[in-house]
Amino acid sequence: MRIFIIYARKARTDNKFLLKDLAGSGGKMDTVCRFVTSCLWVSHGLRRDVDIYLVLNGPPRPPITIHISGENVKRMDPNERSIAIWIQKSLKGEITKDWKNIQEGIKVSAKSFQEIIKSLSDRPMYVLEEKGEYIEDIEIKENPVFVIGDHLGMPRNEEKFVLRYGEKISLGKQPYFASTCATILNWILDKRKL
Amino acid sequence: MRIFIIYARKARTDNKFLLKDLAGSGGKMDTVCRFVTSCLWVSHGLRRDVDIYLVLNGPPRPPITIHISGENVKRMDPNERSIAIWIQKSLKGEITKDWKNIQEGIKVSAKSFQEIIKSLSDRPMYVLEEKGEYIEDIEIKENPVFVIGDHLGMPRNEEKFVLRYGEKISLGKQPYFASTCATILNWILDKRKL
Repeated sequence: MRIFIIYARKARTDNKFLLKDLAGSGGKMDTVCRFVTSCLWVSHGLRRDVDIYLVLNGPPRPPITIHISGENVKRMDPNERSIAIWIQKSLKGEITKDWKNIQEGIKVSAKSFQEIIKSLSDRPMYVLEEKGEYIEDIEIKENPVFVIGDHLGMPRNEEKFVLRYGEKISLGKQPYFASTCATILNWILDKRKL
Repeated sequence: MRIFIIYARKARTDNKFLLKDLAGSGGKMDTVCRFVTSCLWVSHGLRRDVDIYLVLNGPPRPPITIHISGENVKRMDPNERSIAIWIQKSLKGEITKDWKNIQEGIKVSAKSFQEIIKSLSDRPMYVLEEKGEYIEDIEIKENPVFVIGDHLGMPRNEEKFVLRYGEKISLGKQPYFASTCATILNWILDKRKL
């Protein structure tokens, strides 16, 4: 099992964003959608061994976390718009700290980044950061969790928290999109047969 | 300079497709848009050393080739919708064998896949294919051209043609999206400082 977490600093936490303006009205929700595609898809289907947490921290009611289980999710397409429609469905109505099922494989809660990290803290955890240890020089342990910031990066206190459990790793000096990082990580794990 | 070519077997060759249904009405135009994003973007801007050829072979008037120059292109965003809007603009009106400028960095013509390949045949050329030589075992020469099929792959005669000039390389046994291939190739070239 591979777990990917994105910390989306500005992504909206209600469904009042426009499908035709995911970047502006959604607080870079396009980035979040591309991230889902990169984590989940191979050429002819879904990666069933991938779990995703989208931690949305934008207005009006942060934090909201959407969980997508590659094993169970159905009727999802890899394009930004169709993923955005699922995110909108997930963000409709009341959301509490308890997980609420949206459809098979998708659930939502008001859990914070730190709560999600804590719940996964028994697994090997890797925080993507240009200044981390270069991935080609280290071993990735089984059942890894990868924590990735969006283009703004994680706030200092959140990064400090996650580093209690995880270590910084890097894909090189070039900063990449969150979705690019997920694609490369999946390829490296495929290569290493993890 | 890195050049990426996608052979999009069903992608529409006029502007009569819906931005809200790129996959269906556009003949998997979403795949083409994601490919552009993967080729061109890093975290805070465009890769200026990348050129892209989108070879569209769907109805009603194939072939049409759109060329995007990373060095010159302006006002483009990395989301599928905004790239699709540029593709629609490019596909408007008459298109002949001569390149027509759409905006700085984007031009279009009725050139075929084989014409494009021929015009680039003085460069080292690599055709992505699961059965090719594994990329980690080979050297990629400077100024490479990468030729990538969509989810349907290239027709046999086109593949045969391109293999006169290029060699098959592989990212492993797992088939990936065209956009995934572009992301991984860019990362490998970054790593090798090519």
